[in-house]
Amino acid sequence: MRRFVWPVTVGFGDCDPANIVYYPNFFRWFDQATHQMWRSAGYDIAQLRQQTGLIAGPLVDVGATFRATATHGDLIEVHSQVEEWTARTLRIAHQIRRGDTVLVDGFEVRIFARPDPDHPARIKTVPIPENFRALFSSEPVAD
Amino acid sequence: MRRFVWPVTVGFGDCDPANIVYYPNFFRWFDQATHQMWRSAGYDIAQLRQQTGLIAGPLVDVGATFRATATHGDLIEVHSQVEEWTARTLRIAHQIRRGDTVLVDGFEVRIFARPDPDHPARIKTVPIPENFRALFSSEPVAD
Amino acid sequence: MRRFVWPVTVGFGDCDPANIVYYPNFFRWFDQATHQMWRSAGYDIAQLRQQTGLIAGPLVDVGATFRATATHGDLIEVHSQVEEWTARTLRIAHQIRRGDTVLVDGFEVRIFARPDPDHPARIKTVPIPENFRALFSSEPVAD
Amino acid sequence: MRRFVWPVTVGFGDCDPANIVYYPNFFRWFDQATHQMWRSAGYDIAQLRQQTGLIAGPLVDVGATFRATATHGDLIEVHSQVEEWTARTLRIAHQIRRGDTVLVDGFEVRIFARPDPDHPARIKTVPIPENFRALFSSEPVAD
Repeated sequence: MRRFVWPVTVGFGDCDPANIVYYPNFFRWFDQATHQMWRSAGYDIAQLRQQTGLIAGPLVDVGATFRATATHGDLIEVHSQVEEWTARTLRIAHQIRRGDTVLVDGFEVRIFARPDPDHPARIKTVPIPENFRALFSSEPVAD
Repeated sequence: MRRFVWPVTVGFGDCDPANIVYYPNFFRWFDQATHQMWRSAGYDIAQLRQQTGLIAGPLVDVGATFRATATHGDLIEVHSQVEEWTARTLRIAHQIRRGDTVLVDGFEVRIFARPDPDHPARIKTVPIPENFRALFSSEPVAD
Repeated sequence: MRRFVWPVTVGFGDCDPANIVYYPNFFRWFDQATHQMWRSAGYDIAQLRQQTGLIAGPLVDVGATFRATATHGDLIEVHSQVEEWTARTLRIAHQIRRGDTVLVDGFEVRIFARPDPDHPARIKTVPIPENFRALFSSEPVAD
Repeated sequence: MRRFVWPVTVGFGDCDPANIVYYPNFFRWFDQATHQMWRSAGYDIAQLRQQTGLIAGPLVDVGATFRATATHGDLIEVHSQVEEWTARTLRIAHQIRRGDTVLVDGFEVRIFARPDPDHPARIKTVPIPENFRALFSSEPVAD
């Protein structure tokens, strides 16, 4: 499967009074890595929304295990790849590293959706578009 | 003029390695105070946008002077009021206090706008709606 | 066990271009609920650090499942409680609700630690202090 | 004077429901540009603090004028330089650009300080260290 690496320089303001990265920022970087991975594969979620009404990527499940800390000035990398497909979900594995040191192992499970015509403020899941899956995987679909 | 007070409990994650509020967060609280002030006056910017196409509130100018620091656990207040109107701008004064101690003095200058029909990605300023100004001031307009 | 409720008003800036809460903010609110829960029980982590060198609360594992969205102006609540103790970890369950609607179910696993004398930039876990556990639970310790 | 350029890719989560950068993030980028500028000149504020007790950089005044918007996926640059020195302050000009388009013009005024021996929670300003000024300027000091 396609792998993607997104570099981040940890900012002073990304760190908390313990002088280490404030943990919600790791999820900002997960999310940005996902968006950049899609963009780098030529998948434009704004265009998709405008042309088809499809909403790419609501998150349904997320998690992370923290193995080592990072601080301001550190150069770190988010290593991302889609590691599992079902008909209606994709699971992206993210690993954050500083050199050879693994700092964080995590994942995001995302879906595709449309606005629900019966409840304008809600969305309904839809199957993952074939052309999207094709960009990131040649694997068969687990259902 | 109408005054508005918005309370904030400073979070651990709002603070930086110097153990004080990371300064961009004061602007998050300015912005939230502005939105809550409008909402508390019955002005719903989402509804406005949907019904009239008007965009309430793009920021054109902002500033702050920092007089004292705050840290996690502190209860602080944003005191906000519109202090100046022109035909096309409003200037909101924000003062952040912890008890009697002034922490920050700042301001935001905001406009009203519409999408520019000739350049979809741009906006054009419009005069401040009369009914909006009426909610916050009985003062004559400086132009 | 002691339950704790922390109210949050969702800000405009807490939301993303999909007009819903940007998900890393839910973790900011988890973290803030944890800190406020400790503070409300009279446990001052800054004082603890200063007096004993103990570091309260490094995160080792975190996760969340997203069930419904929230947007700016929503009043939501974080409901938190310690749901599991081991000798060296505590697991805090967080549920975020808007009225009766569950938005997010999540958890944090945290530890207590000391600076590692052999590696100044690292920390070593220590057993959870008895007096800390007593504040939040009368349950026996699972090991 | 030494100029410094810091590139930023605008993230999805850096944008608000209006689909443009949420303005406090521009200050995060100002702050990060300042820290990276210092670091790139070989000035390590953590080391300074540890070796001399000096605190590099509390902010006393900040402002910005917003000229054009940016959205997720945009590659932008923060152009920074110290534009004014007094005995006890430095003023850093920041301009944020996307290609040739100026998005934001702003500034930060910062000081150097020491913990106040009479009031442990406060700080006292000190003159800007000569070696620091030398790194960024050959200009005479305005007082």
